[in-house]
Amino acid sequence: MKIKFNVAYNGKNYHGFAKQKGNISTIQSCLEASLYELTGKKVEVLGSGRTDTGVHARKQCCMSILDTTIPIERMAKAMNARLPKDIIVSNVEAADKDFHPRFNVKVKTYKYQILNQDYNDPFVKDFVWFYPYKIDLEKMKQASRFFVGEHDFEGFCSAGASVTTTTRTIYKLDIYNKEETLVNIDISGNGFLYNMVRIIVGTLVDVGQDKILVSDIPHIIESKNRKLAGITAPAQGLTLYDVKY
Amino acid sequence: MKIKFNVAYNGKNYHGFAKQKGNISTIQSCLEASLYELTGKKVEVLGSGRTDTGVHARKQCCMSILDTTIPIERMAKAMNARLPKDIIVSNVEAADKDFHPRFNVKVKTYKYQILNQDYNDPFVKDFVWFYPYKIDLEKMKQASRFFVGEHDFEGFCSAGASVTTTTRTIYKLDIYNKEETLVNIDISGNGFLYNMVRIIVGTLVDVGQDKILVSDIPHIIESKNRKLAGITAPAQGLTLYDVKY
Repeated sequence: MKIKFNVAYNGKNYHGFAKQKGNISTIQSCLEASLYELTGKKVEVLGSGRTDTGVHARKQCCMSILDTTIPIERMAKAMNARLPKDIIVSNVEAADKDFHPRFNVKVKTYKYQILNQDYNDPFVKDFVWFYPYKIDLEKMKQASRFFVGEHDFEGFCSAGASVTTTTRTIYKLDIYNKEETLVNIDISGNGFLYNMVRIIVGTLVDVGQDKILVSDIPHIIESKNRKLAGITAPAQGLTLYDVKY
Repeated sequence: MKIKFNVAYNGKNYHGFAKQKGNISTIQSCLEASLYELTGKKVEVLGSGRTDTGVHARKQCCMSILDTTIPIERMAKAMNARLPKDIIVSNVEAADKDFHPRFNVKVKTYKYQILNQDYNDPFVKDFVWFYPYKIDLEKMKQASRFFVGEHDFEGFCSAGASVTTTTRTIYKLDIYNKEETLVNIDISGNGFLYNMVRIIVGTLVDVGQDKILVSDIPHIIESKNRKLAGITAPAQGLTLYDVKY
């Protein structure tokens, strides 16, 4: 039986999504361990993509092929009983035989949250980037428009991932503040390169600080030069928000 | 120099406020370590009261006597630079020579948060009590009125604390839901016994579940019998919210 399911996780205590050699705690290894416990068989879990150490997910989408008699409507509860409390499975359903959680992605959405103030809140520290310097949201919004559309994002990618192409399409990039100092950056696209969202966010913050001019953004994208883009924003502000097929 | 300061902390990774023998991480031991680093001298930190393992504080109030040349307006920043990120000091000020953070308390306020739904959110799990069974908020509100006023709360106290009297005055006990399933219980009083807030919350939840009748509450208080009261609600839902002098 091929199944598809959603996973929410607090990434703070995990070395990212992807399993690694050795006894290292990752989301994928926890999911596979829960299915092993449940079925008595080694089961592989594939995700829509990796997330880094400290990055969270409201909705990551995964796929597995199982040999079990457990009814599908009970799978989520059975998995959750075997998972740590900071990983939660929902909506387990039968998947088409051709379904692939990474190759079939249509739209992926990330949210990045910045608290534009001095560090002062021990309750949200794992979920936002505390950024104490004044940033100009209007300039960041102007700069954001240049990222939307199909571009070669080679300059907005950290070394270490092997991809066949660095061209991606960004459908939407919204910057808004809900509360006075809480800046939300929502990005949707057909896919993202390694650290791409965090480098875009770091670049936008540099624009908000007048370290990079709004009008320089098209040139920085075209240059494909990582050194011209801004810093990589810290992991804990990033959440994989949605994956659509 | 006698100083008074506020402390906010995420209690998840600490064995409560009070220091303990051995190398055990507590809020008090971290505060004392930061002042030792800062002044080169052993400094005692006194709090308005203890909080248990996993209990949080938005505003705990502390006092210390220091021998230092650091200006008082720089103390908070200097302490925070030496504290873990989940403990934050604010508003360091000179205290009157007679000030005592525990004996001088006029009003102490706690907040308890219940998410009345199945466990489904890895982001708030350390700050709320996930309670999946239906509770009747109206009955809980009716029951709450019996706690307000001066009572002997011996039956709402866990063993283990030595106190001269178990009589306390509760000034206010408000129950309300902000979002549909998020129940807030705010309690103010002149002081609280060991686990008193958590036992009151557990008792109110039992009332909301018809395990205890609203009309039985006066009798349960008068009985001074811990066994007649409800369960001790879990620590992570509790936050020390304010201390007034």
